[in-house]
Amino acid sequence: MKEIIKVSCGQFFPKFGDTAGNLEQVYRMSEEAQSDLIVFPELASSGYDFHDHEEAQSLALDLVDGPEVYKLAEAAKNTGTHIVLGLPERSLDKVYNSTVLIEPGGQVTIYRKLHLFDKEKDIFDPGNAQLSVVETEIGRIGLMLCFDWIFPEVTRMLALLGAQIICHPANLVLDYCQRAMFARAVENGVFILTCNRIGAEARTGRELSFTGCSQILSNRGGLLAKADSDSEENISAEITPVAADDKMITETNHLINDRRTEFYGGLVK
Amino acid sequence: MKEIIKVSCGQFFPKFGDTAGNLEQVYRMSEEAQSDLIVFPELASSGYDFHDHEEAQSLALDLVDGPEVYKLAEAAKNTGTHIVLGLPERSLDKVYNSTVLIEPGGQVTIYRKLHLFDKEKDIFDPGNAQLSVVETEIGRIGLMLCFDWIFPEVTRMLALLGAQIICHPANLVLDYCQRAMFARAVENGVFILTCNRIGAEARTGRELSFTGCSQILSNRGGLLAKADSDSEENISAEITPVAADDKMITETNHLINDRRTEFYGGLVK
Repeated sequence: MKEIIKVSCGQFFPKFGDTAGNLEQVYRMSEEAQSDLIVFPELASSGYDFHDHEEAQSLALDLVDGPEVYKLAEAAKNTGTHIVLGLPERSLDKVYNSTVLIEPGGQVTIYRKLHLFDKEKDIFDPGNAQLSVVETEIGRIGLMLCFDWIFPEVTRMLALLGAQIICHPANLVLDYCQRAMFARAVENGVFILTCNRIGAEARTGRELSFTGCSQILSNRGGLLAKADSDSEENISAEITPVAADDKMITETNHLINDRRTEFYGGLVK
Repeated sequence: MKEIIKVSCGQFFPKFGDTAGNLEQVYRMSEEAQSDLIVFPELASSGYDFHDHEEAQSLALDLVDGPEVYKLAEAAKNTGTHIVLGLPERSLDKVYNSTVLIEPGGQVTIYRKLHLFDKEKDIFDPGNAQLSVVETEIGRIGLMLCFDWIFPEVTRMLALLGAQIICHPANLVLDYCQRAMFARAVENGVFILTCNRIGAEARTGRELSFTGCSQILSNRGGLLAKADSDSEENISAEITPVAADDKMITETNHLINDRRTEFYGGLVK
């Protein structure tokens, strides 16, 4: 296991409906990054602003047996990169707003967005699986999506499950998240890669402008890399994932063990 | 009940060991502020850097029958101000790092710091009471102290208990908290008054420099007022506490009800 790894965010403009073209973009940027881990935006394969559930279903990918997953696994293998991207996931009659981690060895981990934003509630089915953290050869990786950021419970759960690196594909239209993730990194002592998209969509009678500014935060909240608000670009940083196992922030204070859980009962009611 | 109220932070330099002088400062700044609510720093009556538990006990106040509480209640009554300040609290052989809310009607609410910072663990007993929110004539007020900020569970619990305004006396030596409270306000939709102290102490072989920059945040994270890093000053803002009851941040998203608590089990283990 490498002590220091290179991690990247591949910020780009997913073209609505162009699954093949968007995935080509993912392959190309993965190759360019030459990174151990690269995170792409939410719904990177499809674009964002669906009319309805049916339209989302028509662009959704089958993550169990779909051909796209095999191609992504090939790209992960060829580049030696752990690839994370958001996409609409089809499962029977359901469509989830999901993100997938594909390891160079071909292993696939799926996270289905628990907290749907705004009109997404009409488009997608709410996530139905537990938050999880997966042990990879570059460290323990946790997955979350976009609006999950506003619920501190999500990053906290991932940290409790042992995440060292949190991958956070996003389609953000405001800049609150980029500011707030500082707190998420500091309070949990984890590295966070927030990869946002750029560009605009106006398919359903509203204009959505995405704010870019993808960022990579250290386990102490340091800004290691930041993208522009409107350029297609890879940003990268070198990190030491195992540093996230050090939860001591003073000689006596441990971010996890100092919690007084006996006073937190209301959190799960 | 007034719809709009004036709230303030009284940032000052508590002189170590000078309880009477520090409380005079509290009375004076309360009078100057002419506010509905004023928050003072943590350990405002005593200063911060105790040698040990015994020294803290010698400067601790009895909040049940101590004369200081009567004087504070008089000040609250005379100025029509809800006064919040931090102080060492004596209870039998225990000493807590506490904060107290004193209403103009004389009601007293105590919070005992749950998460002790660094050497405070050698000085104080850990808080033993539930987090609570108190209904006052200016709104529902929640209390927390300094290092509690790094645990998102604290502000979340206060929000779940209905807090509209969170009073947060502090003795901060870094500036992480001031940056992170933006997330606390946004994720909970609450007003937050963080009142930090200024000045330095070097009583126990280390130099502690406090960072000031007290701030008042709106329920959407807006910076309503901010103090300097080293001046003694009142900062104030007008707020509408009932605005904090609106947890809708889009047409369909509710900060509290959208939580997926069935997936958060780990938070209380």
